[in-house]
Amino acid sequence: MPDYFSERRLLIDAHLDGIAGHAVSPPSLRPALQAAITSGGKRIRGILTMAVGEAWGVPAPKLLDAAAAFEMIHSCSLIIDDLPSLDDATLRRGSPTIHRQYGEDLAILSAFALLNESYALLARNHGALRPRRWGLPGLIGRVSGAVGWDGTIGGEAVDLHSETATLDFSTLEYIHSRKTGALFVAAGAVGAMLANAPEPGLRSIEAYAKNLGLAFQITDDVLDVVGTSAELGKDTGKDSERLTFVKLAGVEGSRELTGELIETSMKAIEPLGKRGEHLRALALLVRDRTK
Amino acid sequence: MPDYFSERRLLIDAHLDGIAGHAVSPPSLRPALQAAITSGGKRIRGILTMAVGEAWGVPAPKLLDAAAAFEMIHSCSLIIDDLPSLDDATLRRGSPTIHRQYGEDLAILSAFALLNESYALLARNHGALRPRRWGLPGLIGRVSGAVGWDGTIGGEAVDLHSETATLDFSTLEYIHSRKTGALFVAAGAVGAMLANAPEPGLRSIEAYAKNLGLAFQITDDVLDVVGTSAELGKDTGKDSERLTFVKLAGVEGSRELTGELIETSMKAIEPLGKRGEHLRALALLVRDRTK
Repeated sequence: MPDYFSERRLLIDAHLDGIAGHAVSPPSLRPALQAAITSGGKRIRGILTMAVGEAWGVPAPKLLDAAAAFEMIHSCSLIIDDLPSLDDATLRRGSPTIHRQYGEDLAILSAFALLNESYALLARNHGALRPRRWGLPGLIGRVSGAVGWDGTIGGEAVDLHSETATLDFSTLEYIHSRKTGALFVAAGAVGAMLANAPEPGLRSIEAYAKNLGLAFQITDDVLDVVGTSAELGKDTGKDSERLTFVKLAGVEGSRELTGELIETSMKAIEPLGKRGEHLRALALLVRDRTK
Repeated sequence: MPDYFSERRLLIDAHLDGIAGHAVSPPSLRPALQAAITSGGKRIRGILTMAVGEAWGVPAPKLLDAAAAFEMIHSCSLIIDDLPSLDDATLRRGSPTIHRQYGEDLAILSAFALLNESYALLARNHGALRPRRWGLPGLIGRVSGAVGWDGTIGGEAVDLHSETATLDFSTLEYIHSRKTGALFVAAGAVGAMLANAPEPGLRSIEAYAKNLGLAFQITDDVLDVVGTSAELGKDTGKDSERLTFVKLAGVEGSRELTGELIETSMKAIEPLGKRGEHLRALALLVRDRTK
């Protein structure tokens, strides 16, 4: 991973460590909560927020609360996905899942605490930067829409309760545009809003992030088939009962589709010119994940 | 219940019906989600927000988004409390619990959707009223603090994982000031902030709501002992394995304690004079719940 991205990832991890370290919580909750906040991961959503905000000139450290918020929302969604009544997963990010380590009740409470705190972090970041074009109600509304009943949560419900027999590309696109895509779009949009980007810039970022998110999900589906549990740090083959892009298009077809989505995402940010440098590099990183 | 309160409750229920009706969500999630939003209840937290905001002159309809938000946060916490890995409750608000009706996975996803949407509602209400003294970051931070790892969620973790043998008044106060008190304080404070109340007014409301919330919790403990499941619409006797105020102070002692807390709460709003009329009536309603 090029220097820019590994540096941003370290900054985000350090910021999350600080959040976990300063969290006042009862001793019974603390270990689960801290593990949930600091559980690692690629931090691509937070990096996306930072790369977008930095494209319009905001210094990296001034975007860390928002970046941490998106990573905490993402971690929350993983904890929930992994619960016994959902995916019943055993391994995540190279460790036993939170509920396996700390019990289901504390896993659920920690996940709620993460989502809940994310809104405070987003509000604090907006309060510090005060972008004059973009009010906080609009920003909060976008994130809430991306996470909520017609976003990540809605996509997860369809993923759990759709019959494989009736699944097709349009259902799969419905699921992934919500389960993965919506949060990518929100992470990019919030970076642009915090940086006071103009309206056309925000639209470019949204188109970029939508295609990037879908491409990222497809590479995840491919890795679930071609990778090993040890490499990925999570259960593999969990997708065998679900419809995936690989089942519909095969491994090679999925790689082609990824390439097309990445091209579309890079086209969307052409108007940004030099500003879009790190965003283009990020798109190429996603494209090459399965190589 | 006097007219003022039953009218506010109807307004809140109608507003929540509207939110549920307009929620775009997949068919697999919709029934659980709608039941979670419109599941009834006393709506005391939402009424508190409205009574406080109205005390400073905001028309009732302009407080409904915030009132609905507090009710949705409360409903979320009940769904979570009732899950098999926590209280494993069967009955709530006169119906089978959400997970018993719709499955554990959809109950969890619905609860997350409720908390998530609440922040959008709070932000929208602030955006509509634009109180010049109180910024949205501060308001969001307060609610997040009340709900989070040192609030409702933290209190719940202690309630689940404390040994009855070592419990005493101070642990019980820790649990209930967080599990119940914090959200009451936030509901009152947000009403005051949205209404652009001055700082001393906000402080009075916080002291009032803190004592009111604790009194409310004690009356709940008393009702768990003296009420029937049919009367209360939820499982009774669930508290037998937990420490409650009734176990520490007895039914009569708990009633006395309630009376004292209600007096303290009413004293806190004496400076409000005529403004505090409905708040005093609300305090008396809570005091008389167990009579």
